[in-house]
Amino acid sequence: MSDLTHFDKAGRGRMVDVSDKKITTRIAMASGEIHMLENTLQHIQQGKLKKGDVLAIADVAAIMGAKKTPDLIPMCHPLMLSGIDVSFSELTEACGLKVEVSVKCKGKTGVEMEALTAVSTALLTIYDMCKAVDKGMRLNNIQLEEKTGGKSGDFKR
Amino acid sequence: MSDLTHFDKAGRGRMVDVSDKKITTRIAMASGEIHMLENTLQHIQQGKLKKGDVLAIADVAAIMGAKKTPDLIPMCHPLMLSGIDVSFSELTEACGLKVEVSVKCKGKTGVEMEALTAVSTALLTIYDMCKAVDKGMRLNNIQLEEKTGGKSGDFKR
Amino acid sequence: MSDLTHFDKAGRGRMVDVSDKKITTRIAMASGEIHMLENTLQHIQQGKLKKGDVLAIADVAAIMGAKKTPDLIPMCHPLMLSGIDVSFSELTEACGLKVEVSVKCKGKTGVEMEALTAVSTALLTIYDMCKAVDKGMRLNNIQLEEKTGGKSGDFKR
Amino acid sequence: MSDLTHFDKAGRGRMVDVSDKKITTRIAMASGEIHMLENTLQHIQQGKLKKGDVLAIADVAAIMGAKKTPDLIPMCHPLMLSGIDVSFSELTEACGLKVEVSVKCKGKTGVEMEALTAVSTALLTIYDMCKAVDKGMRLNNIQLEEKTGGKSGDFKR
Amino acid sequence: MSDLTHFDKAGRGRMVDVSDKKITTRIAMASGEIHMLENTLQHIQQGKLKKGDVLAIADVAAIMGAKKTPDLIPMCHPLMLSGIDVSFSELTEACGLKVEVSVKCKGKTGVEMEALTAVSTALLTIYDMCKAVDKGMRLNNIQLEEKTGGKSGDFKR
Amino acid sequence: MSDLTHFDKAGRGRMVDVSDKKITTRIAMASGEIHMLENTLQHIQQGKLKKGDVLAIADVAAIMGAKKTPDLIPMCHPLMLSGIDVSFSELTEACGLKVEVSVKCKGKTGVEMEALTAVSTALLTIYDMCKAVDKGMRLNNIQLEEKTGGKSGDFKR
Repeated sequence: MSDLTHFDKAGRGRMVDVSDKKITTRIAMASGEIHMLENTLQHIQQGKLKKGDVLAIADVAAIMGAKKTPDLIPMCHPLMLSGIDVSFSELTEACGLKVEVSVKCKGKTGVEMEALTAVSTALLTIYDMCKAVDKGMRLNNIQLEEKTGGKSGDFKR
Repeated sequence: MSDLTHFDKAGRGRMVDVSDKKITTRIAMASGEIHMLENTLQHIQQGKLKKGDVLAIADVAAIMGAKKTPDLIPMCHPLMLSGIDVSFSELTEACGLKVEVSVKCKGKTGVEMEALTAVSTALLTIYDMCKAVDKGMRLNNIQLEEKTGGKSGDFKR
Repeated sequence: MSDLTHFDKAGRGRMVDVSDKKITTRIAMASGEIHMLENTLQHIQQGKLKKGDVLAIADVAAIMGAKKTPDLIPMCHPLMLSGIDVSFSELTEACGLKVEVSVKCKGKTGVEMEALTAVSTALLTIYDMCKAVDKGMRLNNIQLEEKTGGKSGDFKR
Repeated sequence: MSDLTHFDKAGRGRMVDVSDKKITTRIAMASGEIHMLENTLQHIQQGKLKKGDVLAIADVAAIMGAKKTPDLIPMCHPLMLSGIDVSFSELTEACGLKVEVSVKCKGKTGVEMEALTAVSTALLTIYDMCKAVDKGMRLNNIQLEEKTGGKSGDFKR
Repeated sequence: MSDLTHFDKAGRGRMVDVSDKKITTRIAMASGEIHMLENTLQHIQQGKLKKGDVLAIADVAAIMGAKKTPDLIPMCHPLMLSGIDVSFSELTEACGLKVEVSVKCKGKTGVEMEALTAVSTALLTIYDMCKAVDKGMRLNNIQLEEKTGGKSGDFKR
Repeated sequence: MSDLTHFDKAGRGRMVDVSDKKITTRIAMASGEIHMLENTLQHIQQGKLKKGDVLAIADVAAIMGAKKTPDLIPMCHPLMLSGIDVSFSELTEACGLKVEVSVKCKGKTGVEMEALTAVSTALLTIYDMCKAVDKGMRLNNIQLEEKTGGKSGDFKR
């Protein structure tokens, strides 16, 4: 098991040097959940049909959040993301929603953080849109589902 | 139970008008967890003693993340945050870390989103710093613990 | 007619000192148009019914754009916007859409630039979403409709 | 005529996947106008000679605005812009100024939005610098003039 | 002499709580120098007369840099700056330029960091504009000149 | 000696066109100092042992500052930085600290500005963390130490 590469010999954080890594196609898929009251879920679902679409706003927030990753996560490299997809589904075992984000890039380092940041931003946006009716909502199981590309090999949960 | 106030009559998202709300002291405390392998936790804990301090970096990321909230969460109002505190502790029932963030502001709207965004950013930063050794880490139970101030009243989980 | 206050005596740009101005309720309403092919307008309108809602995305972009105004327009003061409303309508005299944005703030300086920046961002977003089918779209008549509050008095086009 | 590619099958906005597009030299040129009172135009022109140069500030704002495009326009890809040129001229058929921006990049997707965002930011900055003397100024004819590079072919208005 | 207030009892960095501080008028003035070859200084001075005005660009960068302070300096509070002035002069004892920035704000915390960040950004911009002809330029004596307002009292170098 | 390339023929600032430059490995190393009272230096050094680590925060600020360079310095190109290293040492001839930053990138333009911006941000952060005990601190000798890569050749102070 390798060391934490984000520190130099003096123990200072650094942005790891990836200059000599190969440019390969990197894909990462992450997911996360938000648990809520049944009433809140109905608000979201009815809104889509009638008035305001919470998930349309969370979708935009996720995509813009992915692009802000190197601004938010100190040691992340700036990357030229080439594609971002967001999808929402109803949870089956709990009352709430699941968000899945897939991020793609041809570059020298992976896009796991971009996918996870997008998921987290989407869930926080749903919380924000609905907190007037349900402050007890909880974000859960934000995790990497899958990654391909890069020297460290593929990962699948 | 009130409606989702973040939409206007045409169903378009809006930043809710808070012009006529009173300026009061707003405090919000949020928390969240990251679950990891025992080995990863040891890396973090040893690093603090020996080389690099993962949590020092996560602490900075949390504070800067709180300040970026209106940039990330579409309908959030810009706010002049007056204080942010971050603390970390070891989980007892699972292997991992808990982060708690408290945000304070005198203003017209609450700081729940700032506290939740800070928690989420701290946890994502820990993930980033340790993902070379443990890609399976999972963020859990990101939630509002407590809020005071404002017309909607206090909240305590 | 007063001088251009954004310059000092040496001719250097400056952020005008508003420290001694009164805090009043400031409202600005701006509007703008995007002209397009009939086919493009149909794409947008059908999308809303069937698949993707271009205007939901433009709405979010407008609100986030308003918040970025002091980052974009060099001499603009940072402001704590208290409300933003966006609405879209079909043009009657040309083929296209009109966007109207109203911004509210209690502060020492007006929110004209925030309203105009939001309008412009919404229109650019519509252009971006539809440029695959119509690169000839044109933004027109981006203008201040109305402003109230502040020493310089009200304005109504 | 192709569909609006910025939506997935579920109707959610996405950042279109350009991973497999070729890297080519992309150039886009956009323009726009601001119409104003004769007096205002004189202020700008005299300022350049005597005191403060409105257009020097608008020029900087345009260049910085172009770089912010993926932060402002939700579905835009981050790009490594390789050159930006801004020029100003007096309008002949109306009282006002025209701004033209040319943006260059070697990449997988075009730079139309960067050129249009730069034009719009320059015009908004002129408005901001002069609004103390002329709130009725109007932005007009913001449009793509020309683009080269990329699979969709060249465009010339 | 007080302790470093930016740390909590556990040694974690925090944004100091200023909620209970009084709102007073805060002014800070900072300055800094850039030393350069005689030839470089002539380029800057001739440019102003003939072609391009380096200092007009550095002036805009300084003002926009001041507004970005809480984004750059981790523990800085977001503030609603009410005025920023930038001035440039030729150094007398060395070959180069001096920049002075004055920042004003009515708020709960001082604006020293905003003034210093603006000075530093102006000097870095001059370096950038001239580095094609003089890579050896050096930034010197970036310091607080004066501050007024706030409980900690006035400061004058 | 070449002209200032950051201006076009009309004297307007521009982002220089680097489209046709070769992609090479670019490295820049910059340094700078902060001078302070003996007491302040002791606070920093004791903090590292006991409570709060000022330099851990300055390290993060430097890395995030480097990534913000094109947002701060108007004519800088956006770049995909591939590595950033920060180190701190005690000054020998004066009381204070020295920061050195090395930045690496494979690209079409150098990373001098990124290294200098990181140094300046680290020093400003140290100032901010310690200003409660020492407002007279001074930033000095911020300069490029070395650069390699690119057509203009290597530089070593």
